[in-house]
Amino acid sequence: MPAAFQFHLIATDGAARCGEIMTSRGRVATPAFMPVGTQATVKGMLPEAVRAGGADIVLGNTYHLMLRPGAERIAALGGLHKFMNWPHPILTDSGGFQVMSLSGLRKVEERAVTFRSHLDGAMIELTPERAIEVQALLDSDIAMQLDECIRLPAPRADIERAMRLSLRWAERSRRAFEALRRAQAGGALFGIVQGGDDPSLRLESLRALIDMDFHGYAIGGLAVGEAPAAMLATVEGVAPALPADRPRYLMGVGTPADMLEAVARGIDMFDCVLPTRNGRHGLAFTRLGPISLKNARHAEDPRPLDETSSCPAARDYSRAYLHHLIKAGEMLGAILLTMVNLSYYQELMAGARAAVTAGRFEDFRNQTQAIWVQGDVPTR
Amino acid sequence: MPAAFQFHLIATDGAARCGEIMTSRGRVATPAFMPVGTQATVKGMLPEAVRAGGADIVLGNTYHLMLRPGAERIAALGGLHKFMNWPHPILTDSGGFQVMSLSGLRKVEERAVTFRSHLDGAMIELTPERAIEVQALLDSDIAMQLDECIRLPAPRADIERAMRLSLRWAERSRRAFEALRRAQAGGALFGIVQGGDDPSLRLESLRALIDMDFHGYAIGGLAVGEAPAAMLATVEGVAPALPADRPRYLMGVGTPADMLEAVARGIDMFDCVLPTRNGRHGLAFTRLGPISLKNARHAEDPRPLDETSSCPAARDYSRAYLHHLIKAGEMLGAILLTMVNLSYYQELMAGARAAVTAGRFEDFRNQTQAIWVQGDVPTR
Repeated sequence: MPAAFQFHLIATDGAARCGEIMTSRGRVATPAFMPVGTQATVKGMLPEAVRAGGADIVLGNTYHLMLRPGAERIAALGGLHKFMNWPHPILTDSGGFQVMSLSGLRKVEERAVTFRSHLDGAMIELTPERAIEVQALLDSDIAMQLDECIRLPAPRADIERAMRLSLRWAERSRRAFEALRRAQAGGALFGIVQGGDDPSLRLESLRALIDMDFHGYAIGGLAVGEAPAAMLATVEGVAPALPADRPRYLMGVGTPADMLEAVARGIDMFDCVLPTRNGRHGLAFTRLGPISLKNARHAEDPRPLDETSSCPAARDYSRAYLHHLIKAGEMLGAILLTMVNLSYYQELMAGARAAVTAGRFEDFRNQTQAIWVQGDVPTR
Repeated sequence: MPAAFQFHLIATDGAARCGEIMTSRGRVATPAFMPVGTQATVKGMLPEAVRAGGADIVLGNTYHLMLRPGAERIAALGGLHKFMNWPHPILTDSGGFQVMSLSGLRKVEERAVTFRSHLDGAMIELTPERAIEVQALLDSDIAMQLDECIRLPAPRADIERAMRLSLRWAERSRRAFEALRRAQAGGALFGIVQGGDDPSLRLESLRALIDMDFHGYAIGGLAVGEAPAAMLATVEGVAPALPADRPRYLMGVGTPADMLEAVARGIDMFDCVLPTRNGRHGLAFTRLGPISLKNARHAEDPRPLDETSSCPAARDYSRAYLHHLIKAGEMLGAILLTMVNLSYYQELMAGARAAVTAGRFEDFRNQTQAIWVQGDVPTR
């Protein structure tokens, strides 16, 4: 019988937290960054490279996987972990966010969201129950409820309607999860706090979700067009009202700066496509801040990106070489910068964990930000 | 002082040979396959993956590197090995072949070939002396003379003219190599036998080259449009007339079947883009023959490509997963199949070396071909 999902808080420092999630497939140290493995692969990365970069858990996208290759097919092949050769924990989203962002035609009704596949134009229906079923077929360790995520800014009435619908879908997701006995199988289900940038709607949402008793709570509907300050203000309002003994996941966030501020406000988990997507396009996230390798100033620079990094890709290749690879459109440029970025995201999380445990998170935040501001100054 | 270039013949079996090339940067077991690293990267591969796949040496393309990022820049950055983080031997071609195949506008004259860069349209002149200088700037371990390589079929007069020009360029390349004291620096220079599909022209070319005394001899101008039988007939005519104590390199060849037949005829070294290029396009070369992962018959196949392979990419991922990655256009599909293909090419070479040493090369060739013919039959 697989171990039940557990979360232990190890230390706190101000609002910042350090903890661990225990799953039947292993431990996730928090604060945790989850690399995005949209189509059953973290783009350009061998799974062992994702692991070597420090990831304890990756995210899989239900929307993409249910369309191709199909959840039933992945189940027949032994589940998503075996399919993608990643034996460690996987969190899957519910598909709702991608339905909104990728499908041109969609209709949200009480019973389901119906959408046209961006791959072949087929009309597909996704109910809260089907979203849970798909995630069970994938055999994910942490499933998410189906929600409706709308772009900001939006009229309060629209935000309220979507939040209330998301609550009713949360209830149905919870029942479907129990019916499939996913908790007994070691799985977990997270509810998603909605309510846009309206504090009272956010509080209504989170209170209702807490009453339903989820394994963890996500803050959804952010990083969808609002100002960074609005995003942090919402986190600051929501996080303290969430139960201290459950993990808190800020969905789709963000930059290193965003994550550092969110950790300071009590967030435990993140996912974002920035380190992988920007890496493919020539942008490195480093201890010294972001560095665009497309820039011609790197063409003759023999220095590595960061010789103090734990990542070989940041130490063993010159900026001149990385610039050459990006200019030449070589896959290896995307591969190396994705490695650099994922490693830096994980280093940032590891640094935050150590700092919280040592009771010096404020120092860590200040020092980290100071080096970003100082930036990528040649040492010669 | 770096060790001088050496070649030792370890064993022969019929015309097939097993040997070793010693360079200042390490040993190359022969028969050897050299993965192609056109733009200072074997496409999609970390250098440690190329090495783990069994490669002792890679090939760099002088034409591409002199255009971008430039030979002088690579030299200023410490040479090609450091630039691409590959500390093992590198063979560079002379640039001549790509001038013919990639540059739309070109003019071959006695003194030089002048061509328009496919990158920015600049007119560039390449003399035999400059080709040697560029390869010295790259600090390659094995340099190639500049030659003129023409497409087959071609009139005998054209083949003869190009062969004679290539001989005069060989002489100039040899002098330039000595003037730069590349041999004293541990480097080597190979001459290139030309003469198309005409046996008498081939013999004239190789005799003249042997008189010039190169470290090794390449057979050029094949795999350029002629029938496979014509290619092998030329190899069969040329190889026995080459000095037994020098390595023999069949340029741009080929498929596993081509290489096996060429080893049987006394060839020691190969390079080809097929394992990397075809891997990116969904074709796997395996012990069981070529397997096209694009084919829908693999969509639900849980079997790995070859569970007996030494390559993790051939063992740890189902055909269904590889099919999914290729269909979804994911980089990881190209990466895994490139790993599979390079490993299989190296396994084939290692098998040939062991078979020659054990005096059972004919058995090895027959068994290998029999399994290819039997093909990719499901074991269920």
